[in-house]
Amino acid sequence: MKVALSPIEFARRAKRLYSKNEAVVDGDLRLTYEEFFDRCDRWSCALQKMGVKKGDRVAYIAPNSHSHLEGYYAVPQIGAILVPINYRLSAEEFEYIINHSGSKIVCVHPDYFEAVDSVREKLPAVEQYIALEGKKDGWKEYERLLLEGDATYEAIEIAEDDLITINYTSGTTARPKGVMITHRNAYMNIMGTLVHHHLTPEDRYLWTLPMFHANGWTFTWINTARGMAHICLRKVEASIIYELLQRERVTMFCAAPTVLISITNVPEELRATAPKGIRLFTAGAPPAAATIEIVERDLGWELTHVYGLTETTPLIAICEPRASHMDLTIEQRAKVKARQGIELVSSGELKVVDDNGVEVAKDGETLGEITVRGNVVMTGYYNDPESTAAAIKDGWFYTGDAAVVHDDGYLEIRDRFKDVIISGGENISSVEVEGCLLHHPAILEVAVVGMPHEKWGEAPHAFVVLHAGKTSSEAELRLHVRENLAHFKTPQWFSFVSDLPKTATGKVQKFLLRDGKTGISKQ
Amino acid sequence: MKVALSPIEFARRAKRLYSKNEAVVDGDLRLTYEEFFDRCDRWSCALQKMGVKKGDRVAYIAPNSHSHLEGYYAVPQIGAILVPINYRLSAEEFEYIINHSGSKIVCVHPDYFEAVDSVREKLPAVEQYIALEGKKDGWKEYERLLLEGDATYEAIEIAEDDLITINYTSGTTARPKGVMITHRNAYMNIMGTLVHHHLTPEDRYLWTLPMFHANGWTFTWINTARGMAHICLRKVEASIIYELLQRERVTMFCAAPTVLISITNVPEELRATAPKGIRLFTAGAPPAAATIEIVERDLGWELTHVYGLTETTPLIAICEPRASHMDLTIEQRAKVKARQGIELVSSGELKVVDDNGVEVAKDGETLGEITVRGNVVMTGYYNDPESTAAAIKDGWFYTGDAAVVHDDGYLEIRDRFKDVIISGGENISSVEVEGCLLHHPAILEVAVVGMPHEKWGEAPHAFVVLHAGKTSSEAELRLHVRENLAHFKTPQWFSFVSDLPKTATGKVQKFLLRDGKTGISKQ
Repeated sequence: MKVALSPIEFARRAKRLYSKNEAVVDGDLRLTYEEFFDRCDRWSCALQKMGVKKGDRVAYIAPNSHSHLEGYYAVPQIGAILVPINYRLSAEEFEYIINHSGSKIVCVHPDYFEAVDSVREKLPAVEQYIALEGKKDGWKEYERLLLEGDATYEAIEIAEDDLITINYTSGTTARPKGVMITHRNAYMNIMGTLVHHHLTPEDRYLWTLPMFHANGWTFTWINTARGMAHICLRKVEASIIYELLQRERVTMFCAAPTVLISITNVPEELRATAPKGIRLFTAGAPPAAATIEIVERDLGWELTHVYGLTETTPLIAICEPRASHMDLTIEQRAKVKARQGIELVSSGELKVVDDNGVEVAKDGETLGEITVRGNVVMTGYYNDPESTAAAIKDGWFYTGDAAVVHDDGYLEIRDRFKDVIISGGENISSVEVEGCLLHHPAILEVAVVGMPHEKWGEAPHAFVVLHAGKTSSEAELRLHVRENLAHFKTPQWFSFVSDLPKTATGKVQKFLLRDGKTGISKQ
Repeated sequence: MKVALSPIEFARRAKRLYSKNEAVVDGDLRLTYEEFFDRCDRWSCALQKMGVKKGDRVAYIAPNSHSHLEGYYAVPQIGAILVPINYRLSAEEFEYIINHSGSKIVCVHPDYFEAVDSVREKLPAVEQYIALEGKKDGWKEYERLLLEGDATYEAIEIAEDDLITINYTSGTTARPKGVMITHRNAYMNIMGTLVHHHLTPEDRYLWTLPMFHANGWTFTWINTARGMAHICLRKVEASIIYELLQRERVTMFCAAPTVLISITNVPEELRATAPKGIRLFTAGAPPAAATIEIVERDLGWELTHVYGLTETTPLIAICEPRASHMDLTIEQRAKVKARQGIELVSSGELKVVDDNGVEVAKDGETLGEITVRGNVVMTGYYNDPESTAAAIKDGWFYTGDAAVVHDDGYLEIRDRFKDVIISGGENISSVEVEGCLLHHPAILEVAVVGMPHEKWGEAPHAFVVLHAGKTSSEAELRLHVRENLAHFKTPQWFSFVSDLPKTATGKVQKFLLRDGKTGISKQ
């Protein structure tokens, strides 16, 4: 017997089994699963009354609030497609994504009313603007719509290959691309996460990770699948986080290493208030040894490094803890935990391959590109067959991440593949050179990119931001690298700059540096 | 992107990630995953050379041995269908199942050579008889076939809806029926088990449960999915079990309550040798309070009661532990652990319904039939559309089990539905009356069935086996029931018998008692 693999199934199950359990805590608001789903069902009903049909797109620009979370059920359960937008983007980017996705309804938190209103005239397809909270002229009030209607929406048949969300990538090189995620994609990512990371109805999840980030890595549905409480967090602020950790007896959260640093670098008195035994996932960059030390030793938490891309729903690797890892020193363990790890039981086949598609040796040295095929890989980019064809070749998705494979089979990312510098036939990981330079006491930030070189083809160029009040020189920095890395990895050129060009999510836009679009010329 | 959901995927993954890990221990034999899969691949190759094609059936009659386990990979990975047969059946039953399944190849352990040879002439479709161990005239030697060939079998495209096994039910009422399990069915049961029961590559599984029982509840594949060691056990004998528990550092096993009793009822010195912290699943009947007490208090193990049928791959409910359960006394906890529990995250929708298909109240009293729809439900009975139509109605599989639902949503089986006695409009659970009679010190075994009654329509009839050397009377037993249960539940008739008719798996054949086929007449 086949029943569609869909996260919506978890709503049905939670209604049956966890109706009286706490579903959502958002500030002073507390909702049981019964109350939460009543709101979701009412919103489904209201959307249908506004003419939303199967396949229609509904966009959200909102922090981690209960009404945002409601969208993850109300929209897909009527066969419509959720488009969660990064609220840190500009009004022009909102405009691009809303138009590109053809969203019919746009649901917005008050903080972004103004930005959306500023581009409203350029959004011809949008039929309704919904104020998730508060009120404003030209906006319909979410809460009023819920109250006016009822919860009896029309059931819509959903196939597992139907889209559940379109998630726009932030795009370090080009316009955002719309990643098409099916119900089955999301379901399989949820299974994979739960197989490797045991959660129970007693767990309580803190929403440090934005829901718009690959659907909060699908924890929007994972927590519900296990009947857990979603503890909303609208702003990543250490004092609020510690208050919630304690008051809400949080047991699990996810955070990028930068967020993790802001959580760990607090006064000891504050740290002491946090419950022990919290488990957390980190992704996006390897966690620093210093962070792991504070997390494990001072806080008594357990950190797992995971890896994926929006295009893979997202998890395709987990640095699964082994009993043997616990025998290592913190320094050694930090090295192991910096690895992205191994494929999950259900994420699909993962290979690190060279230019000829041959797997690289498990030597911890040879760079290859991470490729994957499996049920978590997106259907493609929305209305963009060209980018889709460039990313998925012969059934394999090419991540663009360059990695080595260690002898234990755990892979470790060394760079974005396009940022690998090929100099005199040797591969140079820009991340490795950056890491080396960051150890120099004068350097605050650095980006290394490959530039054309007459003799070597390409050579590294370092763009350096110094700490306020510190000085350094090209000669000093060159010497620093030569003392620590192979000579051919030493940058040929150095530029001292006041800041680096970045995307809304904080990623350095290396293509701008390479193209000389920052107005900096080579020294 | 869609890739077939199949347990064969775990073979690929284990080859990649766990090649040097211990895969199988069987007596003195130890195989790494690399060695194990080399054998599986060689056997696939040999099967193809013998003409086995996609969709062909290959039968096994074998204990829990490494060669039996190899069949769970070698057969399905070439698109063929495994037919694991209960070795406790008679030669005639072997004959029936081999013929009904149309098996082309029959793989047999030496203990069953004779039985198979005795019906060989009546097996026209069988092309090859394989001696999994040893040798005999007319039998091909498994080990020789592996050695002679190589591991390069021809890859066969497998769809997730293809059959992976046909499992014959033991049939308390009729001929065995062939339950058709797809690759997707099995995959989803594996996911569900792993989501609720966290296992890691460090876990080591002891094969107390027969592999032929619903594919060892899919642990034939679960252990491999997690890179765990399979510790084979060919005979359920307490002394061997305790030796293996200790020597092989076992962390997990499954056992029916009767097997569990034989494991727990051993001298204290033997018990003391067992590692603490072992986790185990039990199913088939609720574990007794006394057993739970020994398991938890004396052995320091953790017991979980699960529920399912061969037709549901099999798990559809798990008595998931709650933190609150640990506050209960052992007696209270035994009552909770006797419940079959709640639907798994991925097993599908489970409803306990009355005659009109309406869900029964969560009152712990109203009996209904357990029904389920979901991705673990079989495709149907092989070559038996009539039985299939009787079991699956309007997309729901009817289990034939009668249960109540408690206020926490946990269901508890009270009887097989057909064994519920309807007397004067009241439902009487035969299991409840049996449980009451079993508390009488003179009674060793008892079966209660409904018999026609002039006034009440039906009334209970108890078939009683007394302990050797004990005596009792109808009047005494009737009084015993009246003192403990509602009066209408008291058996109208008692028969004292020397034993009860049972199937090969030890289930009482109540239909024989009802039909008077045991030669016992009502007193």
